[in-house]
Amino acid sequence: MKPDFQLNDHEIYMDNAATTAVAEEVLDAMKPYFEEKYGNPETVYQLGRDAKCAVSTARASISDIIKCQPEELFFTSGGTEANNWAIKMAGTSLPDQGVMVSSIEHASVLKSAKYRCRNVPYFEIPVDSYGVVDLVVMENELKTRKYALVSVQYANNEIGTIQPIAKISELCKEHGVYFHCDAVQAFGKVKFDVDDVGADLISLSSHKIHGPMGMGALYVKQGTILEPLLHGGGQEGGMRSGTLAVPEIVGFGKAAEMSIDSIKTDMPRLMKLSEDLANQICLSFKAKRNGHSTQRLPNIVNVTIPGMETSVVCGIMCSKFGICLSAGAACSTAKRQSHVLEAIGHDAKDALSTLRFSLSRYNTAEEITMVFCRLQAAGNQAESRSLI
Amino acid sequence: MKPDFQLNDHEIYMDNAATTAVAEEVLDAMKPYFEEKYGNPETVYQLGRDAKCAVSTARASISDIIKCQPEELFFTSGGTEANNWAIKMAGTSLPDQGVMVSSIEHASVLKSAKYRCRNVPYFEIPVDSYGVVDLVVMENELKTRKYALVSVQYANNEIGTIQPIAKISELCKEHGVYFHCDAVQAFGKVKFDVDDVGADLISLSSHKIHGPMGMGALYVKQGTILEPLLHGGGQEGGMRSGTLAVPEIVGFGKAAEMSIDSIKTDMPRLMKLSEDLANQICLSFKAKRNGHSTQRLPNIVNVTIPGMETSVVCGIMCSKFGICLSAGAACSTAKRQSHVLEAIGHDAKDALSTLRFSLSRYNTAEEITMVFCRLQAAGNQAESRSLI
Repeated sequence: MKPDFQLNDHEIYMDNAATTAVAEEVLDAMKPYFEEKYGNPETVYQLGRDAKCAVSTARASISDIIKCQPEELFFTSGGTEANNWAIKMAGTSLPDQGVMVSSIEHASVLKSAKYRCRNVPYFEIPVDSYGVVDLVVMENELKTRKYALVSVQYANNEIGTIQPIAKISELCKEHGVYFHCDAVQAFGKVKFDVDDVGADLISLSSHKIHGPMGMGALYVKQGTILEPLLHGGGQEGGMRSGTLAVPEIVGFGKAAEMSIDSIKTDMPRLMKLSEDLANQICLSFKAKRNGHSTQRLPNIVNVTIPGMETSVVCGIMCSKFGICLSAGAACSTAKRQSHVLEAIGHDAKDALSTLRFSLSRYNTAEEITMVFCRLQAAGNQAESRSLI
Repeated sequence: MKPDFQLNDHEIYMDNAATTAVAEEVLDAMKPYFEEKYGNPETVYQLGRDAKCAVSTARASISDIIKCQPEELFFTSGGTEANNWAIKMAGTSLPDQGVMVSSIEHASVLKSAKYRCRNVPYFEIPVDSYGVVDLVVMENELKTRKYALVSVQYANNEIGTIQPIAKISELCKEHGVYFHCDAVQAFGKVKFDVDDVGADLISLSSHKIHGPMGMGALYVKQGTILEPLLHGGGQEGGMRSGTLAVPEIVGFGKAAEMSIDSIKTDMPRLMKLSEDLANQICLSFKAKRNGHSTQRLPNIVNVTIPGMETSVVCGIMCSKFGICLSAGAACSTAKRQSHVLEAIGHDAKDALSTLRFSLSRYNTAEEITMVFCRLQAAGNQAESRSLI
């Protein structure tokens, strides 16, 4: 259920790739674990056992969805920690071997890989103009040099492009290299399981699917050589120490459960809504749509509108119409550069004329119409401003 | 205010060093940030600005308490991450120099230090029978070898002993070595600021002071050479990436604020209650009290009761009387060994006869009396069982 609280009448939130509202059901599931069932899951009395049980239930929910063993799923503080952990600590028994990533990975993947690869090979697989990784280049590089790990995201956070994951996995297997897949944006929006992905490591996040912030998970296929990133009390089978954040885990589990239905019912609807929005914008503004037309997330629309200074438009959209979205790219409108747009062939100027709308199941067809109308008004205002 | 929910009439929670109930005021402060003000603090529209503002307020609250600059405080996913970060990533420009820790540090300190010191010196400073670090040994070692970092906790989580932090800091300064202080158990129970501690790095945690789980912070003195542990989107000034967990940060800030009064009013009361409990147990059971008699946390009582199998007693206390406490040591009653008890001179057998009571501001004098009476009953039952 959409959270009880409503934005002001005119407010519309379309920045769900940055973060999402916690669903009412999720918060209800979490509440008892703050004040009542507050035990540390490592303790043996009832309060602790209740907490442990809740953690097990959440772990089972998520494991069931991606069809892995519960023992293969480790809770982390979010997608960033999961990505850092996988990329810095997998296959470290191969100290001379580097890491291969796609050029449009999330910053937490790119920077972790660069950090690991201070003294070993680091390679970025280029993407085509739709954002799809170049499998030929990837294969050639795998033939040329031995890597410890390949990391390619399931779907991109800025343009929504879904990668040919099965083929990437196959190439990795062929060349005996670990495959990590950052599925933070795809999880809960696209149906997949660990066999579909065929990865040794998969990162998930809670706050992109109406779960709480500060919570995520790393799937680690049985047998994968992975050192802990956080050492300590030995929680999570010694793989991820630190007192388990029980309420957040419970919320993540509930949000994941709710995503099962959402994928069936909301996502096809969002696919259509986002298609409509993109088409309207492209038609009216002579805009260029970024990303792949079919191999894409159902909830992301990314458009470059020539001549439109989107940070100004975004400002008007936000202050005047209460519409929350990202100009440029990534979580921050403040960031004026986008390595993703650059990788798909845009120049720096295009990045300043780009808007990302990211929907969630709580967005409606009416909102899409309203957003489009307001975008036109904002565009006109921005234009008249620049004429002054 | 004590959480609205009451344990059953006969239930008493005395395992607050493991985790604490989230205070009602804390949860109230957090709630709006789940469903209403759910923005990502990195975004520029109102929802994001509200979230950013809330994070700033929480950071200011905690910075004010420990009297540091807000820019010196970085939010983490908890004490374990803060300890891992400080110990693995501080002073890494000195790759040949190792780490010195006290022998009774938390596992997250000991294991992080051992991990960092795979190829460089690792040294454990011994403690006396009260758990106080041996400053002579520490100084000698500092004179003998060059270390990158010394890590000594403010107060111990099992026996409550407070270390001579000012002297330790002085020695570190004299020898030009970074000083990290794990203040997770002390924060919110003992008044201190960064000048008192004199450390370059200080770890704090939220869930030990009636704040939410999954939240902590690392104080990093301006000028300290520290690499990020988590790379990515560049949050926290590029020092700790990952979307900020806004509700948890807000809760941590509120819990920290509440601890100011609690230190003044509740802690002297707890000092007396814990003293009474310890004395009663020592008298009735010929028990030995562990830790320092005056240099100690006000809320921890650790006793070794000769001949008492405390895991059995703990089981009875818990199942029959609903009293939550730890047998042996650490967060987990399941752990039957304690490096802390060993370090202060106990043998393995003593560890099996040890109980830790850890109080919070919500414990009352009546509960202390009840716990003592029930401990007697449980002791008798355990004894009669072992006679059968």
